[in-house]
Amino acid sequence: MSFDLKAYLEAHRVIVDAALDRVLPSEEIVPVNLHRAMRYSVLAPGKRLRPTLVIAGAEAVGGAAEAVLDTACALELIHAYSLIHDDLPAMDDDDYRRGRLTNHKVFGEAMAILAGDALLTLAFRLVADNAARLADPRAVARVVADVADAAGTDGMVGGQVIDIESEGKDVGADTLEYIHRHKTAALIRVSLTAGATLAGGTPAQIDAVRRAGESLGLAFQIVDDILDVEGSLAELGKTAGSDVRKKKVTYPALLGLDASKRKARGLIDETKRLLEPLGPPAEPIRALADFVFERRS
Amino acid sequence: MSFDLKAYLEAHRVIVDAALDRVLPSEEIVPVNLHRAMRYSVLAPGKRLRPTLVIAGAEAVGGAAEAVLDTACALELIHAYSLIHDDLPAMDDDDYRRGRLTNHKVFGEAMAILAGDALLTLAFRLVADNAARLADPRAVARVVADVADAAGTDGMVGGQVIDIESEGKDVGADTLEYIHRHKTAALIRVSLTAGATLAGGTPAQIDAVRRAGESLGLAFQIVDDILDVEGSLAELGKTAGSDVRKKKVTYPALLGLDASKRKARGLIDETKRLLEPLGPPAEPIRALADFVFERRS
Repeated sequence: MSFDLKAYLEAHRVIVDAALDRVLPSEEIVPVNLHRAMRYSVLAPGKRLRPTLVIAGAEAVGGAAEAVLDTACALELIHAYSLIHDDLPAMDDDDYRRGRLTNHKVFGEAMAILAGDALLTLAFRLVADNAARLADPRAVARVVADVADAAGTDGMVGGQVIDIESEGKDVGADTLEYIHRHKTAALIRVSLTAGATLAGGTPAQIDAVRRAGESLGLAFQIVDDILDVEGSLAELGKTAGSDVRKKKVTYPALLGLDASKRKARGLIDETKRLLEPLGPPAEPIRALADFVFERRS
Repeated sequence: MSFDLKAYLEAHRVIVDAALDRVLPSEEIVPVNLHRAMRYSVLAPGKRLRPTLVIAGAEAVGGAAEAVLDTACALELIHAYSLIHDDLPAMDDDDYRRGRLTNHKVFGEAMAILAGDALLTLAFRLVADNAARLADPRAVARVVADVADAAGTDGMVGGQVIDIESEGKDVGADTLEYIHRHKTAALIRVSLTAGATLAGGTPAQIDAVRRAGESLGLAFQIVDDILDVEGSLAELGKTAGSDVRKKKVTYPALLGLDASKRKARGLIDETKRLLEPLGPPAEPIRALADFVFERRS
């Protein structure tokens, strides 16, 4: 009997959405507009891929979803903050995201900047509180540090900087891979490792999910590039062809579509190979990897 | 023999500046412009009030500066990030800060947003690593959570939101106090409590510095309001009268100059009264409190 990913995704989306609603500040309390802006972007319908990977990372080493739910939420908050700031006029200047108006189009630029700041701040509080339920203080610091590293100058923010600086320039495969590994893969990787670390994974297990997450994250962004060429607004929730319009370098532009698909497929196969030592408990991650690849078709 | 605050401030400024230089990523590594932007704002000459308060908070309960230096840096990074984002065109739209061009005037808006994001992220890494050198995992989470609370929706970011929303409006004393307590006092308060918590202060000691920090922080912002009316560009490093120009509500505008000075003086006296149970080790905080008041004259 094969693993039912659809049911798994749906079940996790429901518990993650409920948890996000719980951890976000209420629109009933001051500052009301800030809380509205935070909730607007985070609670927009989405796959909750990063939270689901946190949970799958915990399960892969014998942990349970409930125990890592706050950290799962934290990763979604960091993802949402990065989208809000990326969409700003000074950055990618996008009007639509996930099929809705972007945060600054609804709440104004100042509020969008501050909502992003507040989401990033709240994320670290959630991770620290979640991690403190473990006995080992070094594990608390390790998870906070891992998340900070994946989100900061040597991770997501660093990737965004090089992405912006590369617009309209003739960049090579090395730079493109730097951007994708930092801007996208780092957060996907740390979703898995945070889950596995919090659930008490061994160093070998954590290293396996770290390497698998790195491959999966790069594959995810290559598929995203492919979707930008092939996809429609309905599928993406954003304007197809926007990478070309913004003169962003992409894998299809650099390698062509077929080679990009082969590269993504190879990375997905590698992801699954790296997960072999974890056995059956890593089945959800494997299924998620196939899902990442197949969403392009 | 009275406490030599001038020597104390100078000695701590030197060790904090050296530590900031150490914890900030090098301009020699990629992404170079991001690291330049981060260092430009953080390393601009300053009093390092918040880091000095972290150290003074530790010393007040018997701790040493070296043990809390990374957290001292973290508070300066959070302060610097908040200034970078506050100065953006979408927010206060300031061209000068601490007598130099603001971050976005030098590096552009996109880089200024990302530099702020990266500084906030790095701050949490530093706090977590610093706290992990303690034995108690709950203390690690408590310090990270306290810093996040002081910086987030119920702290600095929340205060900035209400500040922006109040511009040009006829707001009362309650709203003004909300803004000042959240936007400014929260971070000053948590500087003291983080130091005291990391240095192993008792709950009673931590509560005393928390309440003292709250009074000191509010006094600090009232003095800042007074300086904005009375001060010069040379003293402030920013344009005097800018609050009036931006139609920001201030204590002098609401209460008048004399009543504002009396309120600040009363809060400084309260700060010192709250510190009495801590005895002589809290002398640096008392001297800093007097310094905060006297910088207006």
